Amino acid sequence: MTTRPAGSIGISLGEVETPALLLDLDAFERNLKRMADAAVGAALRVRPHSKSHKCPVIALRQIDCGAVGVCCQKVSEAEAMVNGGVRDVYVCNEIVDGAKIQRLAALARQARVAVAVDHPDNVKALREAALRFGVELSAFVEVNVGMERCGVEPGEPVVALARQISGSPGLHFSGLQAYHGKAQHLLTYNERREAIESAVEKVKLTKSLLEQAGLPCEQISGSGTGTYCFELKSRVFTELQPGSYIFMDVEYGNIQGRDGGPYRDFEHSLFIYTQVMSCPSEDRVVVDAGLKAFTTEKGMPWVYGMPDVQCVGVSDEHSLLRINGSDHTFKLGDKLKLIPPHCDPTVNLHDWYVGFRENRVEALWPITARGPGY
Amino acid sequence: MTTRPAGSIGISLGEVETPALLLDLDAFERNLKRMADAAVGAALRVRPHSKSHKCPVIALRQIDCGAVGVCCQKVSEAEAMVNGGVRDVYVCNEIVDGAKIQRLAALARQARVAVAVDHPDNVKALREAALRFGVELSAFVEVNVGMERCGVEPGEPVVALARQISGSPGLHFSGLQAYHGKAQHLLTYNERREAIESAVEKVKLTKSLLEQAGLPCEQISGSGTGTYCFELKSRVFTELQPGSYIFMDVEYGNIQGRDGGPYRDFEHSLFIYTQVMSCPSEDRVVVDAGLKAFTTEKGMPWVYGMPDVQCVGVSDEHSLLRINGSDHTFKLGDKLKLIPPHCDPTVNLHDWYVGFRENRVEALWPITARGPGY
Repeated sequence: MTTRPAGSIGISLGEVETPALLLDLDAFERNLKRMADAAVGAALRVRPHSKSHKCPVIALRQIDCGAVGVCCQKVSEAEAMVNGGVRDVYVCNEIVDGAKIQRLAALARQARVAVAVDHPDNVKALREAALRFGVELSAFVEVNVGMERCGVEPGEPVVALARQISGSPGLHFSGLQAYHGKAQHLLTYNERREAIESAVEKVKLTKSLLEQAGLPCEQISGSGTGTYCFELKSRVFTELQPGSYIFMDVEYGNIQGRDGGPYRDFEHSLFIYTQVMSCPSEDRVVVDAGLKAFTTEKGMPWVYGMPDVQCVGVSDEHSLLRINGSDHTFKLGDKLKLIPPHCDPTVNLHDWYVGFRENRVEALWPITARGPGY
Repeated sequence: MTTRPAGSIGISLGEVETPALLLDLDAFERNLKRMADAAVGAALRVRPHSKSHKCPVIALRQIDCGAVGVCCQKVSEAEAMVNGGVRDVYVCNEIVDGAKIQRLAALARQARVAVAVDHPDNVKALREAALRFGVELSAFVEVNVGMERCGVEPGEPVVALARQISGSPGLHFSGLQAYHGKAQHLLTYNERREAIESAVEKVKLTKSLLEQAGLPCEQISGSGTGTYCFELKSRVFTELQPGSYIFMDVEYGNIQGRDGGPYRDFEHSLFIYTQVMSCPSEDRVVVDAGLKAFTTEKGMPWVYGMPDVQCVGVSDEHSLLRINGSDHTFKLGDKLKLIPPHCDPTVNLHDWYVGFRENRVEALWPITARGPGY
């Protein structure tokens, strides 16, 4: 059920209740601008992935910065984005359920709607729904460029599916979905570069076969926060789908930049605000945020601004901080910020962003696309 | 934001949208009864932990089965329980924030309210709030019986805090909070038994010192789904706080029973319903539930009823199933059930239980205590 916000506009950050999802608006806006500038410099489109933020307010800010629309992963997310004012949504994922396909087609009465496909039966179902609702759906063929999840193999299997789409009234063949998810968090710059070079080869081969078949790709869409600089230079990708760049997290904080140091293309803007609730021993402090405030499948959160204080344990409603050898002292009620291990599923736990600037709450943005996404 | 339910009452299970949180009502009711019968047999109170279900409808079902009230972990959970009709709530956790303490005291105008403490400053703050609102708060001293999280050490530190509570108008010393969280998931029956035997020794020593100081314990509260059978026989615990027993999950499914086989005191009743969305290769199937439908900090989900199909990867909106060597074949749109790795944070991702019996939807129960808990 929807929770009330953890603070109100105008209060100081220290007055925000815990645990809450904080957004540093200055850092967020610098991140927005950096990605936009990079894409403009390379004459590429940006279509940020809204699965990271799940918030139409943020989507509209991205569009203000030049984004052509947003990606979504679920029909429910696309509905929330369109309801929040976005007019161009691309569900870059397979939608196979009959009821969901109807919702997708119905949404195309209100906005430009695209979807990814990887199966001929799915193309048929999309065509029927598009005809029933009298709309056109753009369809991208998802190609497996190394992620080994959904998608058809590069080359002829893509051509066959593109031909089927192209011959389907109500559908428009728009190009390739070529996201390499596994490449995003490879440790070194060179590992990520090599992974994307391999993906680019597969895309080029496939694009060329499509052209020979008279099925040109309008868009080749993919990329993420960890690899955007490689797709930018690829001369084959036309559209970037970064999500996490607006927030960053521990998982991205752990990868290396080009110089072997930390990856610093973007700044940490997303935090979990938490409070000391128990100080049971000299070296142990317990704070009030746990698995219901952030997720830990990518490891422990970082304690912001305190590299010598480690989070060593997380349970449902608690985190345990180890302050061995630290100069920091804590008392009951102290508040601190954690950098979440993984931004997307962390955002999904919350109903509101508490946006702050210079320690004052300035924005309360509802996370209307939250939820499992049925 | 609140999502609509994934189905409606009366439809068949196969018509429920995915991913959804399913509750097998028959298995759930058998679990309710088993714990209630065990406690009655031992003449102990049951005060189930609502942090697992976050749903007043379930709390009231537990009370119908003899529970004296519920435990909560957050003030927000206690508020949701009282708003949903529960009249006896125990926040068995430390509440140190000034605003939250006021909410707790205000809640005691509507219901019996207890709270755990582990610090003298916190006792003072609770006393002031109780006096301001003209209520009595029951206070339990949390004793560290082996969990190494919150709580004071057994023995004299407990007596000092109990004495302070006892001398505080507005507060009532109710006894000990003695939960051994780390013991719940120890692999073998004997490891769990030994951990609780050690906790029981600490509790007995402390209880005896308290009695010598003229501070008798009305209740000694603790235990969980993995160890309840040991606290039951301890002759010192008076109240059990099990949470997961109504649902079970992979983490509890992985521990051993007394005979060394799987722990079968309770049945799996909680599932994530999911749908096949891509069949990219002979041995690989992708379903539409990922980290936004269940959490994986305790490992991978199980595919219910298909022990030869393994979940080998989970991302934000997808899970990858490996069907090597399995007789199962899958096609787009097939629906199946996953057993979540860890029930509490999984429930927290959803707004509704879709309760079913004999493949028909019978109940839609709102998860009103969902959220990070500020």
